[in-house]
Amino acid sequence: MSGAFELPGPIAAFIADHHVMALATTRNHRPYQCSVYYVPIPDEAALLFMSAEQTRHVQELRANPHVAGAIHVEPERVANIQGVQLTGTVVCLGQLTAMENSDSSFNMNSVFNIEVATNSEYYSEIDSAFEQRTFNETEALEKASLYLDRFPEGRRIGGSLFQLRLDWIKYTDNRIRFGFKQIWQREGT
Amino acid sequence: MSGAFELPGPIAAFIADHHVMALATTRNHRPYQCSVYYVPIPDEAALLFMSAEQTRHVQELRANPHVAGAIHVEPERVANIQGVQLTGTVVCLGQLTAMENSDSSFNMNSVFNIEVATNSEYYSEIDSAFEQRTFNETEALEKASLYLDRFPEGRRIGGSLFQLRLDWIKYTDNRIRFGFKQIWQREGT
Repeated sequence: MSGAFELPGPIAAFIADHHVMALATTRNHRPYQCSVYYVPIPDEAALLFMSAEQTRHVQELRANPHVAGAIHVEPERVANIQGVQLTGTVVCLGQLTAMENSDSSFNMNSVFNIEVATNSEYYSEIDSAFEQRTFNETEALEKASLYLDRFPEGRRIGGSLFQLRLDWIKYTDNRIRFGFKQIWQREGT
Repeated sequence: MSGAFELPGPIAAFIADHHVMALATTRNHRPYQCSVYYVPIPDEAALLFMSAEQTRHVQELRANPHVAGAIHVEPERVANIQGVQLTGTVVCLGQLTAMENSDSSFNMNSVFNIEVATNSEYYSEIDSAFEQRTFNETEALEKASLYLDRFPEGRRIGGSLFQLRLDWIKYTDNRIRFGFKQIWQREGT
């Protein structure tokens, strides 16, 4: 919520203009990739995404929360390249139970069976990247609402809601000028 | 070269229809991402891409050739998701010197100062993923031509030409039906 976590305008605008990110995890010196629908969290330099627990990328990020992301356009000409590369760490906010009837009245507490994550789930020998912060239920529900307002289909599909805390971002925009890059790094990282 | 390396039709078609891939490398248990312009190599289940030597992703893949890729569209609705996730290993085919005058007559041998890679450059303690195969100059030049015919701007920019040998691909296409997936794996991997 601190202003120190605000992203530079062009980076924030590019991230807000898109909604699909390539997300990389790693295990045993091998990277893995998936694509996720994301929603930026205002003023936190963080993104929300939802994924199923049984997927390989969720299993990998539960063992090692370090991830990297790429968001880009796909222009024919190099002169029109725009994209973001980013790194950060992931924490789970809770599980959202799939709803059979998406028309039912919306009540966060009853609709979503959120089990707020405890730190012990994230212990790993990798390093200390597992976020020490504990999310309270109110915050988790607010963030679930933020995500599901943008992607209502998530209510029907269900899954785990993750928060990706961004530590580093490189923004490339050749339309500004060839080779234009802007780098943001979280203070203290 | 071998029919065993042919990709299933829908996967090959999707890869051919696109040209920008999110490419993930990894070092010290941290994944990294970049975006590259790729060209499929017919009948080899492999992709070509060009990158500058000084980039972080090239430094990382020279230390560990295991990479993962994601190619996707960015639809608003989950029902229109299409994308490929892939893993494989990378080998360098050579360096392409940037041309100042892209209108000069095209002569592979004189235009491109290709230094065919030797295996010793790729030694690593990671594992035996470093491809043992040596590329001869004719093959490297043919592949450089394949890449540069598709992306002529590479002649002006220069860089190292890499071949990504695909080992595993998962293709998702919700337009066929929700949750449709097709998996391809290289024989013997």
